[in-house]
Amino acid sequence: MPDNRQMLIAALPSGPLQTSNFEMQTTPAPEPADGQVLCRTLAITIGAGQRAGLQGSASYAGAPQIGGVMGGTGVAQVETSRAQGFAAGDLVMAPTGWQDYSLHHADALQPVPAGTAPALQLGGLGVNGITAYFGLLDIGAPKEGETVVVSAAAGSVGHLVGQIAKLQGCRVVGVAGSPAKCALLTDELGFDTAVNYKDADFRAAFKAATPDRIDVYFDNTGGDVLGSAIFRMNIKGRIVCCGAVSQYDTANPAPGPRGIPGLLVNNRVRMEGFLVFDYADRYAEARAQLREWIEAGQITLKLSEYHGLDAAPQAFVDLLGGATTGATIVHI
Amino acid sequence: MPDNRQMLIAALPSGPLQTSNFEMQTTPAPEPADGQVLCRTLAITIGAGQRAGLQGSASYAGAPQIGGVMGGTGVAQVETSRAQGFAAGDLVMAPTGWQDYSLHHADALQPVPAGTAPALQLGGLGVNGITAYFGLLDIGAPKEGETVVVSAAAGSVGHLVGQIAKLQGCRVVGVAGSPAKCALLTDELGFDTAVNYKDADFRAAFKAATPDRIDVYFDNTGGDVLGSAIFRMNIKGRIVCCGAVSQYDTANPAPGPRGIPGLLVNNRVRMEGFLVFDYADRYAEARAQLREWIEAGQITLKLSEYHGLDAAPQAFVDLLGGATTGATIVHI
Repeated sequence: MPDNRQMLIAALPSGPLQTSNFEMQTTPAPEPADGQVLCRTLAITIGAGQRAGLQGSASYAGAPQIGGVMGGTGVAQVETSRAQGFAAGDLVMAPTGWQDYSLHHADALQPVPAGTAPALQLGGLGVNGITAYFGLLDIGAPKEGETVVVSAAAGSVGHLVGQIAKLQGCRVVGVAGSPAKCALLTDELGFDTAVNYKDADFRAAFKAATPDRIDVYFDNTGGDVLGSAIFRMNIKGRIVCCGAVSQYDTANPAPGPRGIPGLLVNNRVRMEGFLVFDYADRYAEARAQLREWIEAGQITLKLSEYHGLDAAPQAFVDLLGGATTGATIVHI
Repeated sequence: MPDNRQMLIAALPSGPLQTSNFEMQTTPAPEPADGQVLCRTLAITIGAGQRAGLQGSASYAGAPQIGGVMGGTGVAQVETSRAQGFAAGDLVMAPTGWQDYSLHHADALQPVPAGTAPALQLGGLGVNGITAYFGLLDIGAPKEGETVVVSAAAGSVGHLVGQIAKLQGCRVVGVAGSPAKCALLTDELGFDTAVNYKDADFRAAFKAATPDRIDVYFDNTGGDVLGSAIFRMNIKGRIVCCGAVSQYDTANPAPGPRGIPGLLVNNRVRMEGFLVFDYADRYAEARAQLREWIEAGQITLKLSEYHGLDAAPQAFVDLLGGATTGATIVHI
């Protein structure tokens, strides 16, 4: 069997993630048993939510194991199939983890149409795209003319949320962490305006950017931006709780935002958490619509691409540190 | 014209409310102009939410005026009518405020069936009852067999929420502030169990009282009880944000609860604020059902009754201090 490079969790981070939290090992690739499919990873995607899975406490991302292979979703090519429905050469999406080869039962594999670029599949039609689609349209339910605000707006989910909201006829405000990201949002991605949450006058700028207040706030960050948005919600506004990236890469999560529950009551605001996995039976619908929008040029896909499995830890550190835009993809 | 005793706001409270925040004056009762109805107040009800209206900042209860008559809902008898649809002697529910006589346009009056006891109308079919009804059934949407937790459970809204939840086939846990209140809930009102939030081991007791976790948390308090409940919610649980009484009677509201938004995401929890006024077109439905339940003995109405307009400030102080149970009624 060929060599299988694996990126292991060497230590759980107690503060900001470092590349030293990972270490590479090489073992022989496994052999598929009856009913199994051996896949060779072509590319993986990294999402900020995976940092929550390294907290060591209960999390939707599952409990991590020191010495275990770092988890994650990839696009892979079937190397050897001993399961019905898959043949060598097929493209699949799978929980490959950060490694060259992985074994799966057929029901863990999602077929990917031949010829699809792994980066499109992972960065536009992957978990981030589906999350943006259902979180905004199903939980946020924006109406034409409403104001939609999204945090981590230059991120993998956020940059799609804003563009989907524009397609619904909404006024869209992005919150991001640098002037370059804000410029990306307004100049390339069609956001109406953008605010840098690291600016000293963020609260005033945020207020000025939302003159008609906020109907849908799509929250990827929690923390201060959520705290500001709660004070700007319109009556019957909706807060889509998608993630809390401001709280992941730290040992000391902040207390909750002020104004809860008082402002939720006064303004009849709904705040709802969701996980995309609850929409598994509707993924195909989301992927078809996203693909159509992307191929028609109505949505611009932003990617931060890295090359080589050994670049994955740095890609993850960059992502958490705010150095990436769009979806983070590592070509293996 | 007869004398009109009026209880005025003498000063806005800067900490816990005191009776000295009010003062009585006596003026001649006003005379109705064409289209107006002069009403004589029979009884008023006081709700904890009115304390929020005295914060001096924007609030759903409206901005209070020093020197103005304290606002509030009462049952009154029509003294003189110069409006169609009302005649002297009719019973009405109206925003009477804390005074003997008040003037209203007809559209501010809700007819009350002749012979209805003011305390039933205000304490069972009033804002508290309707709030309990829509907040639980519409926002909380409990299903048979689910666990419903209510805070301020011995209060005007809470004691009805728990009993309505029992009628839906739910397991009901009340949170209240004294052993006597807890005993009231379990021994008289049919709650399955009750927990005293002032106990040193509250968190452990709360956990023990919710072995199947919480499907619907009806929050009247905010603060620590909300903070505890967020950690006990089941997947797809609903938090009904009805009030924040723990935060009203203070100059220093607490920071928001920890775990927001992280726990809302992980457990796909919906947290939704509401105001009963949004249900105005369905009040009749709620009143008819509540009246049926009360008259059939399926719901036990608890009242804390006071006598005389000059007792109203003390009644309000008692209510905020946790010395009352059920609905607080002042017979004028």
